[in-house]
Amino acid sequence: MDPFLQAALDEARLGLQEHGIPIGSVLVIDNEIVSRGHNRRIQSGSAILHAEMDCLERAGRLTANDYSRSTLYSTLSPCDMCSGAALLYKIPRIIVGENQTFQGPESYVRSRGVDLQIVNDPVCIELMRTFIEENPTLWNEDIGLPTQN
Amino acid sequence: MDPFLQAALDEARLGLQEHGIPIGSVLVIDNEIVSRGHNRRIQSGSAILHAEMDCLERAGRLTANDYSRSTLYSTLSPCDMCSGAALLYKIPRIIVGENQTFQGPESYVRSRGVDLQIVNDPVCIELMRTFIEENPTLWNEDIGLPTQN
Repeated sequence: MDPFLQAALDEARLGLQEHGIPIGSVLVIDNEIVSRGHNRRIQSGSAILHAEMDCLERAGRLTANDYSRSTLYSTLSPCDMCSGAALLYKIPRIIVGENQTFQGPESYVRSRGVDLQIVNDPVCIELMRTFIEENPTLWNEDIGLPTQN
Repeated sequence: MDPFLQAALDEARLGLQEHGIPIGSVLVIDNEIVSRGHNRRIQSGSAILHAEMDCLERAGRLTANDYSRSTLYSTLSPCDMCSGAALLYKIPRIIVGENQTFQGPESYVRSRGVDLQIVNDPVCIELMRTFIEENPTLWNEDIGLPTQN
């Protein structure tokens, strides 16, 4: 596996160990990981710290020049919010572990000029499939869908 | 002025008092303000806490049913990231103080079914115009544009 996607997957697993939603992300500039993040809905009671947002936040205040040379990795297809954050900062490339268990606005992101690549890695797919099966309510909350009562 | 837009403007001014970027936001559900936020790039060294994101974060983990009855107010046209957050949570209505000093992806947001209304309030416009004039580098950073050297 691409070592950067592997690092994102390591973050996802770290989230799972913390009893969180297992999605991870890393930001790479000039072939180096400058930030790592994972979903913190449970851990921080957060409505906005999806993996990619957490990763961008932990990267700190970067310049437009930094973002212009960056690649955002995520184990899962970025949702509307995370895609929007990538568009705001004009991140030119997004590498996605899988889009079988969830699909963000991929066509729109590509129409805005982003090189968005889907790996569909079986380990990333299995991690999310198992989590969603075991935690459907929590998962629906994270993607803005109604939860069962 | 609409009292909810006024509350968002109060948040923007609070941000300015803190030497931050003067953009404010409130989230309204069933005619009550459930959360208030403002841009915290300076105050928290944050790359993601735009006013609307701060407001959504401070609202905590709401249900899809809560979001479905909500209106998001912002003193300024929401950027790609903040628009994306509203789309993720299917917030049906966004009231924008002004879009003269900055325009987010308004057409796209409307194409996704959101009722997005622009007030173009002169006080909101003047607040941003003055801030941008005095802080062009900081402003460009906040909207992902290159800053002067």
